[in-house]
Parts: sequence; structure tokens; C-alpha cells
Amino acid sequence: MSAPKLSAEAIQSKLKELNNWRHEGDALTQRFQFSNFVEAFGWMTSAALVAESMDHHPDWKNVYNRVDVALSTHDSGGVTEKDFKLAHAMDALARSRVLSAPKG
Amino acid sequence: MSAPKLSAEAIQSKLKELNNWRHEGDALTQRFQFSNFVEAFGWMTSAALVAESMDHHPDWKNVYNRVDVALSTHDSGGVTEKDFKLAHAMDALARSRVLSAPKG
Repeated sequence: MSAPKLSAEAIQSKLKELNNWRHEGDALTQRFQFSNFVEAFGWMTSAALVAESMDHHPDWKNVYNRVDVALSTHDSGGVTEKDFKLAHAMDALARSRVLSAPKG
Repeated sequence: MSAPKLSAEAIQSKLKELNNWRHEGDALTQRFQFSNFVEAFGWMTSAALVAESMDHHPDWKNVYNRVDVALSTHDSGGVTEKDFKLAHAMDALARSRVLSAPKG
């Protein structure tokens, strides 16, 4: 059974818990920027492992240090709890990459 | 110094050595399809290591088992030998993934 599609109001409310994600069309979208390609692809690799373990995969585009992400639950025709769960995980992975960077 | 941009004629000639790549706009483009997300992202990881070692990075978009790639040399304003080199490497990596898949 596919997860229930969230209402626009529910999405707006839950967006406040995320770090600057947007609701565009049928998806949650975000642009992640890193210091270079290695950092960007390293983050993608971490996020890919999480996505595969959730069996819920992002649409994403990478150009050098930038990753544009769109999360949507295609079976449900919109945004569901699964998208928010993956978005939270992506935010956490981005934070941990920044915090673990060498100082100086 | 950036690599010299290739002429449309040179690009058409060199495209024959690749596996169904196209010349669109200022880029070489290709759609790679795999059996699932793990295969697609595994291929991307291999290609990312090659790209980083060449210091020449793809623009690419992944949706589940599909990876759309565009290769262009931004400093040169078009397609150069570096793009063909990366395209050949990507083809070789895609071939090796297929050949090494377990037989069913």
C-alpha cells in the first residue's frame, strides 16, 4: 500500500522542521552546495545508502559542488511522510559533513 | 590553458567511436539505464572516481535506475577531447558492470 499523500497545509507545517526545503509541484526540493565535487559526491554516497535502505529514492542532479534534489512519492502522486523522512536524513548528513570538516 | 573546443565536424566523426552518445547544444549527452538504483549508483561512484582523477566532472541527473549525463568543457565553451575521454571511460565502466553481473 502506498503512503498517503499529504495535504498542502500539512506539507507547509512540516517544512518548518526542515532546513529551507521548498514545496514545488509534487515534490520537496532543495539545493545542497558543498566545497567541491568530492564533498558533494561523498554526501550523495551517504544519502544513496540511506535512500536504498528506505527503498525510497531521490531525483537528483549534480553539477560539480552542487546537488539539486527533488523528493516525491510517485506511487502516491505527491509528497508523503517518506519524503520528509528522507529530507531529514539528507539534512542530517549535510550537517555532519560540515561539522566533521577539518578546521583552519 | 583550457583544451581547444572541437568543431561540429570533428565531434560527429569522434562520436562514431562511442556507444550512441549524442551532440546536443554544447555537450555530449547519453542516457545510461541499469537494472536498479544500486547498479545505477554503483556505476556513478566508479565514474565519479574517474572524473575526479581527470579533474573533469559530468553534469548528471539520476532517477532510480537511470542516469542522464551531459559532458561539456565549460572553460572552453563546448566539447573538447576531455569530454570524449570521460565518455569513453563511462562507456567502459557501463560495459564492465554488465559483463560482471551474475548470470541468472
